[in-house]
Amino acid sequence: MSYTRTIPVEFNHCDPAGIVFYPRYFEMTNSVVENFFADEGGHSFARMMAEGQGVPTARVETDFHAPSRLGDRLDFTLDVARIGGASVNVMLTARCAQELRITADLTLVWVQSGRPAPWPEALRSRLATHLERVAP
Amino acid sequence: MSYTRTIPVEFNHCDPAGIVFYPRYFEMTNSVVENFFADEGGHSFARMMAEGQGVPTARVETDFHAPSRLGDRLDFTLDVARIGGASVNVMLTARCAQELRITADLTLVWVQSGRPAPWPEALRSRLATHLERVAP
Amino acid sequence: MSYTRTIPVEFNHCDPAGIVFYPRYFEMTNSVVENFFADEGGHSFARMMAEGQGVPTARVETDFHAPSRLGDRLDFTLDVARIGGASVNVMLTARCAQELRITADLTLVWVQSGRPAPWPEALRSRLATHLERVAP
Amino acid sequence: MSYTRTIPVEFNHCDPAGIVFYPRYFEMTNSVVENFFADEGGHSFARMMAEGQGVPTARVETDFHAPSRLGDRLDFTLDVARIGGASVNVMLTARCAQELRITADLTLVWVQSGRPAPWPEALRSRLATHLERVAP
Repeated sequence: MSYTRTIPVEFNHCDPAGIVFYPRYFEMTNSVVENFFADEGGHSFARMMAEGQGVPTARVETDFHAPSRLGDRLDFTLDVARIGGASVNVMLTARCAQELRITADLTLVWVQSGRPAPWPEALRSRLATHLERVAP
Repeated sequence: MSYTRTIPVEFNHCDPAGIVFYPRYFEMTNSVVENFFADEGGHSFARMMAEGQGVPTARVETDFHAPSRLGDRLDFTLDVARIGGASVNVMLTARCAQELRITADLTLVWVQSGRPAPWPEALRSRLATHLERVAP
Repeated sequence: MSYTRTIPVEFNHCDPAGIVFYPRYFEMTNSVVENFFADEGGHSFARMMAEGQGVPTARVETDFHAPSRLGDRLDFTLDVARIGGASVNVMLTARCAQELRITADLTLVWVQSGRPAPWPEALRSRLATHLERVAP
Repeated sequence: MSYTRTIPVEFNHCDPAGIVFYPRYFEMTNSVVENFFADEGGHSFARMMAEGQGVPTARVETDFHAPSRLGDRLDFTLDVARIGGASVNVMLTARCAQELRITADLTLVWVQSGRPAPWPEALRSRLATHLERVAP
């Protein structure tokens, strides 16, 4: 089951060419991940900070398929592709009216007290409910 | 010959964990690319905008090897890895006092009047002087 | 009648002290203004760009009354304080659970083809419906 | 004696109208203040963070006199206008080739362990060397 979230393209995101500046896409992907952990994982970033936890990004692979413009509404989906001992790969896509704009594979690491650590069991279980199902 | 540029980590770049927020690294990589095209390619982004040109980023692969903190000085290097008909791959690294922080492989596309176009010959030649030499 | 809009404080907005970094508040005020012109004025920024118009900010006076933290929900209000020939003053406040966080007085200028210009009558009328009523 | 610092306008700062987006000016003013405290006050923000100190901004008054464009070089000056018990007013200007672009009056508060506190004497003395001299 994909997690979904819509982000409107606002003035703040756009560059002199009138399209989304790619660092701003990563502000968006971070926001989608942040809301996913709060809504689906029961771990807001505020809670994580308070408890000495975090999910820093270790690796990013992103394709920018088509430009996005001021006023576009970007429909993001997030799926969990792989859960490792202390890491997770999440796949994000953004579409505008079905047109694919970006696909991103983010590797996140669960950190406790500044070091990678095994996922808490409850969080791992929740992540697992978002694992992509491979078509048979 | 690598193109180099140093960017100090300032308050603006850092998140509540006290480390560089990853979208800010992409503001840095964009700045390095922008200065590279101006300094080495003879094409400032201002000139490109005026002439209907651009080098949008089509793909990003980035590894975040170690966190960077407020006050660090990041030494970026940029090498050209591959020159295609209308694209280029640039490899960036950032180090702080020799410690590797990020490596990024960016695929940029030469755009003229909104469409991918062959590199102007003079620019292509300049890019070629920055091609990485593979060790024999 | 105040225009209202809620913006959650996300990771992206916060600095190493764990509070909203003040330039990010201005990303928020710009977003509130942008949505106000689209929702209440019938002029999205995308429409304005297409028609050679804009409402650049000429002056800002802002008080930061109390810090905002990750996870706070900021309730913004926008009122029109004064409508000039080619300008408008909008007063914004942000509160979290009734606690005042910021007050901002922004002077915006209506620009057509790069120059200040008289407000279009329809837009001026719509702005006027948001004029603050002074208590008698 | 004014503190000075030059910031080039890069792609990252510019909006779809091709001019500096005003929240980015505040990233610049923050950077100038940050470097001023490090260079002239002996207090880098990294040192402040480590010692539980900070200089949050309590009030901003800014006039945007003329737009700045991609490729402009902005020459900032910073002068100390007033030193209070636990606060300071700094006046910043940005010019491009002598043309005034912005003037900003920032009220900063010295904070120790989360609360406004009297300036450390050494820091106060250093700030005082940057007080504007009023013409007789």
